[in-house]
Amino acid sequence: MILSALLTSVGINLALCFLFFTLYSILRKQPGNINVYAPRLVAEGKAQQRGRFNLESLLPTASWVKKAWQPSEDELLSIVGFDAVVFMRILTFSLKVFSVAGVLGVFILLPINFVGTQLNEDSSDLPNKSLDSFSISNVNDGSNRLWIHFCAAYVFTGVVCYLLYYEYNYISSKRIACFYSSRPQPHQFTILVRAIPIPSGSTCSETVESFFKENHPSTYLSHSVVRRTSKLQDHYEKKLEDVEHNVRLEQSSLAGKEVSAAFVSFKSRLGAAVALHIQQGINPTEWITERAPEPHDVHWPFFSSSYLKRWICTLMVFAACAALTILFLIPVVIVQSLTNLDQLETWFPFLEGILSLTVVSQVITGYLPSLILSTFLSFVPPIMIIFSSMQGYISHSRIEKSACIKVLWFTIWNIFFANVLSGTVLYQVSVFLEPQKIPSVLAEAVPAQASFFIAYVVTSGWTSLSSELFRSIPLLCNFFKRVFSGKNDDEFEVPSIPYHSQIPKIIFFGLLGITYFFLSPLILPFLLVYYCMGYIIYRNQLLNVYAPKYEAGGRFWPIVHDSTIFSLVLMHIIAIGIFGLKKLPLASSLIIPLPILTLLFHEYCQKRFLPIFQAYPNECLVKKDKEDLNDPTITEFYENLVTAYRDPVLSMQYPVSTDGRNTPLLHTA
Amino acid sequence: MILSALLTSVGINLALCFLFFTLYSILRKQPGNINVYAPRLVAEGKAQQRGRFNLESLLPTASWVKKAWQPSEDELLSIVGFDAVVFMRILTFSLKVFSVAGVLGVFILLPINFVGTQLNEDSSDLPNKSLDSFSISNVNDGSNRLWIHFCAAYVFTGVVCYLLYYEYNYISSKRIACFYSSRPQPHQFTILVRAIPIPSGSTCSETVESFFKENHPSTYLSHSVVRRTSKLQDHYEKKLEDVEHNVRLEQSSLAGKEVSAAFVSFKSRLGAAVALHIQQGINPTEWITERAPEPHDVHWPFFSSSYLKRWICTLMVFAACAALTILFLIPVVIVQSLTNLDQLETWFPFLEGILSLTVVSQVITGYLPSLILSTFLSFVPPIMIIFSSMQGYISHSRIEKSACIKVLWFTIWNIFFANVLSGTVLYQVSVFLEPQKIPSVLAEAVPAQASFFIAYVVTSGWTSLSSELFRSIPLLCNFFKRVFSGKNDDEFEVPSIPYHSQIPKIIFFGLLGITYFFLSPLILPFLLVYYCMGYIIYRNQLLNVYAPKYEAGGRFWPIVHDSTIFSLVLMHIIAIGIFGLKKLPLASSLIIPLPILTLLFHEYCQKRFLPIFQAYPNECLVKKDKEDLNDPTITEFYENLVTAYRDPVLSMQYPVSTDGRNTPLLHTA
Repeated sequence: MILSALLTSVGINLALCFLFFTLYSILRKQPGNINVYAPRLVAEGKAQQRGRFNLESLLPTASWVKKAWQPSEDELLSIVGFDAVVFMRILTFSLKVFSVAGVLGVFILLPINFVGTQLNEDSSDLPNKSLDSFSISNVNDGSNRLWIHFCAAYVFTGVVCYLLYYEYNYISSKRIACFYSSRPQPHQFTILVRAIPIPSGSTCSETVESFFKENHPSTYLSHSVVRRTSKLQDHYEKKLEDVEHNVRLEQSSLAGKEVSAAFVSFKSRLGAAVALHIQQGINPTEWITERAPEPHDVHWPFFSSSYLKRWICTLMVFAACAALTILFLIPVVIVQSLTNLDQLETWFPFLEGILSLTVVSQVITGYLPSLILSTFLSFVPPIMIIFSSMQGYISHSRIEKSACIKVLWFTIWNIFFANVLSGTVLYQVSVFLEPQKIPSVLAEAVPAQASFFIAYVVTSGWTSLSSELFRSIPLLCNFFKRVFSGKNDDEFEVPSIPYHSQIPKIIFFGLLGITYFFLSPLILPFLLVYYCMGYIIYRNQLLNVYAPKYEAGGRFWPIVHDSTIFSLVLMHIIAIGIFGLKKLPLASSLIIPLPILTLLFHEYCQKRFLPIFQAYPNECLVKKDKEDLNDPTITEFYENLVTAYRDPVLSMQYPVSTDGRNTPLLHTA
Repeated sequence: MILSALLTSVGINLALCFLFFTLYSILRKQPGNINVYAPRLVAEGKAQQRGRFNLESLLPTASWVKKAWQPSEDELLSIVGFDAVVFMRILTFSLKVFSVAGVLGVFILLPINFVGTQLNEDSSDLPNKSLDSFSISNVNDGSNRLWIHFCAAYVFTGVVCYLLYYEYNYISSKRIACFYSSRPQPHQFTILVRAIPIPSGSTCSETVESFFKENHPSTYLSHSVVRRTSKLQDHYEKKLEDVEHNVRLEQSSLAGKEVSAAFVSFKSRLGAAVALHIQQGINPTEWITERAPEPHDVHWPFFSSSYLKRWICTLMVFAACAALTILFLIPVVIVQSLTNLDQLETWFPFLEGILSLTVVSQVITGYLPSLILSTFLSFVPPIMIIFSSMQGYISHSRIEKSACIKVLWFTIWNIFFANVLSGTVLYQVSVFLEPQKIPSVLAEAVPAQASFFIAYVVTSGWTSLSSELFRSIPLLCNFFKRVFSGKNDDEFEVPSIPYHSQIPKIIFFGLLGITYFFLSPLILPFLLVYYCMGYIIYRNQLLNVYAPKYEAGGRFWPIVHDSTIFSLVLMHIIAIGIFGLKKLPLASSLIIPLPILTLLFHEYCQKRFLPIFQAYPNECLVKKDKEDLNDPTITEFYENLVTAYRDPVLSMQYPVSTDGRNTPLLHTA
């Protein structure tokens, strides 16, 4: 790609962004769109309905930027919850990282690359200059200037590791602080028990009760057996509003399918933690305990109590992900053919005329490939959500976290590796079967794709942000609803932010920035623009649009940490290869300690911080439990706790079980 | 190697074994040797001293075989403890596996191999026949008979997996049963806490007491702070017998070095388990808890309370193991040159005359190599014990387990892989950097070393067993002691069985048997002899010689399980390669599901059984705790528990610490 093609792409996208921003600042002031652009405020009753219409509302303003900028982190925490604060910290962390990288890259590395003569380009014709002349490829082989790149890699890794440590430390202490300041909540006192071994002649409920009364006599409070009610809900939800007692009985016989799993509540958080952390039964595949989610976070459809079944499901999901990855190679190949126009002309000779037009070829090489990729990529998060839910997680939040990890690795593999390797050794997954060749293969292939990824940041990154702000699909839905139903519908759902699609995107741009930091520093300014815009836009959306449905306690951060370490090590591996190719073998060897040190740092962080994100320590649990003793509302809380994990559909009833005996749905000890 | 060379080797070793057995049966009856051959019985006062001398005692008898054979497993359990029973089950497990393998191998595979014509050997001259004609190499390429080998691989894997499951299940249920039948023991109620964060102005003891009183108010019993007393012990042990009060004071000021670690005891087993399994402090690298060992099992010299220090030590030990592995290649190269006599003649031409003698060449190829290897290998277990203790384990039993794993992998790498690969691609560790080539490389190299490993089983295996029985070094020591000190010394230590050197040996022969099962079934009869002899000899030694010093609760079994799975998968990988080389690609592909299924089976076993070996489940703890409530001796036990983890050197004293304040060594809550 040449510089002018990049500038075309930047121009198109800047224009698009401004268009979206302008439209947004106008549309958001229109009274009919308040459900689209401020559903959260409407739901909270904070949005004041404006007058019917005035001319002033047609003028674009930037007041929303100021409003989004203003709240401090503590205010944000109280308004949008801890997960959203962690989400915003991913953006500020990235901003910090790429500010440092930007200064190093643009002011030190870029000039060095540019004055190199390796590629023998004519330096007078700037617009037609290939982007490669800004990359490390242009530095002369064996030049001592490469030692500056070498130092930059060390300095940058040090800075990133410092920031990672600081951030992990900060977020984990915030997590503990949030726990300390929380009110007693049902999921803190409850665990989910699966694979309950029910002796013949006994019911699940009796088994659970006798087991926990025997083994946790002082802390056991109550339990509620899980029933498969999802199908029921579909059939009866509407009818329930005017349901009669006999209907309820009929329903209860349908609901009779008891699952050998139960939510067990305890009188203290420590009591729940003891049951959670210590293996309960002699057979470790029975009485499997896990943290209970918040009551409204429970997800039933794929619930399975059997250990073996879940294990097999996980294996199947793994296979399905692999299949999806292979299928996804098809759009990647299409995209790659678009960046190599010569190849396209060979395949479709009749296109030659059109492709010779400068604008067309520039749009095709600069804009279309990443548009196609991001379109296909937008189908991936929903699919991964389905895969994750098939693994039998009990809560939406855990499904979302699992899907987030899947989407992330899918993106890294299918966007980064498939693109990088298809340019040179497509389908050669075999690269990874010869580990000693990886550095040199990557060192050849990765810099070659620099221009594609710069364009990808500009098109996919910037566009995704402005469409996030503009919310085109809800806007259209809202418009048609108003036109056709004729009334301003009061019933609407406040959306929650889809972390599983947003976080992988942000992390992936971070991976691009880190790997290309010293290869092709031209990418860094565009990334900085992306993160700045992202900071404002996501703040705006969190404050106005999204409402947190459930709290994951900042459990997304470890994913960010891990993948940043991965990006760093990937950068080091490429550096080993690059310095080898550039005939500076000493630098190539001296880089080797860097990934080792980074991985040791990672190992240390895992031990130092990860346990805090997996469970709350004894010290905190005891402290909170002691506070409860002085809390006058705790008796009321216990009463609510008993019914907290009751299925909403089945509540308010005492069904007769299929064998005719009276079995209350919920048993209190 | 030709058949006659093998028979020479077998002959020499059989003769040696009989010699040792005869000598043993005579020497054991001599009154002066009772401390060598029955120290355990002497210590227990069960051995009756015979009269001075009679002629009958010079006649070799086999009565010891009968005595060793008789006790049932339950009797063995009560006499020698659970670990020894698990040790014996390794042998019975191996016997079962290789009985099946022997039947399949000798009666089905061996004849098929022998009638093949691939190697074009003259079938008339049996003694000069190469051992290769009994191996799979002799089966004709592409022959359909190879499908019998294919089926044998599947059947054998199935049988081994079934036996593994059965054994894991049996041993884990025995482990629980042993726990149920045990008396209350200090280590069940105690944990070790390291990395205690001591606030300035406070002592370790105060910190521990306030922390546990705060967080475990109902179960905390007492604690004793760890002091570095090992150096002290060396200086004062002898003097202590007649020590005066002022000496004690001097000593206590030397002993002042308090370590930020403590043994904390609880009133119940569940209390200890709660503190063990739940992260205690907010910072996971502080208040690190681990199971306390039995009081007499504690090992001080390399004790470190700092998390970071232990981590660095572990990394250093890892590096040291790698260095040792590389150094060990030297004897391996020597051994390899001995099996390739031609090469030796090229290097040292003057040997040509000697080497042309048949007997010399047969001894050199058949006997010397494995003797050299096993001599060098005998230095490895003590070195690994030192390495493991440097990692900062708190107990001898854990050091021994860790050393056992190290010795095992060292043996597998340096005896199996280094020998196999040195014959063809010495120093080509790079084989493992090209994973797709591993099957074919191994398939070429492994069968070529069959004769070496058959000789290794016969020489190293059989000899090590008979020398185990004969106890030559203790015998000599005892002899010189009697001759020079002139008296029959009453002071002697009952040895404990060195699991870390014995278990890897037994497992390694299992690995040889499993990998060579279908390649060269000739190895199987010799292995069966090894295990039969081992069964009797180890039983005899456990009953008469060794006394258990501490109980590891059968924690050696998971090592056996893991390595057996490793052997199976190794066999499968070689099978993939072999069927490829033998031009039967379909069989090669159809073997692939086998390692996958085996690994899934392993994964399942890990989940099903491993947790039982790591900690006792809640159900068991509660049951035992309830029994204690009716135990009249429990108050006395609690009193003893308070002093159980007191250092024997420092007990009976109340030292003045360096800052002049009176700090009792042990603080009771």
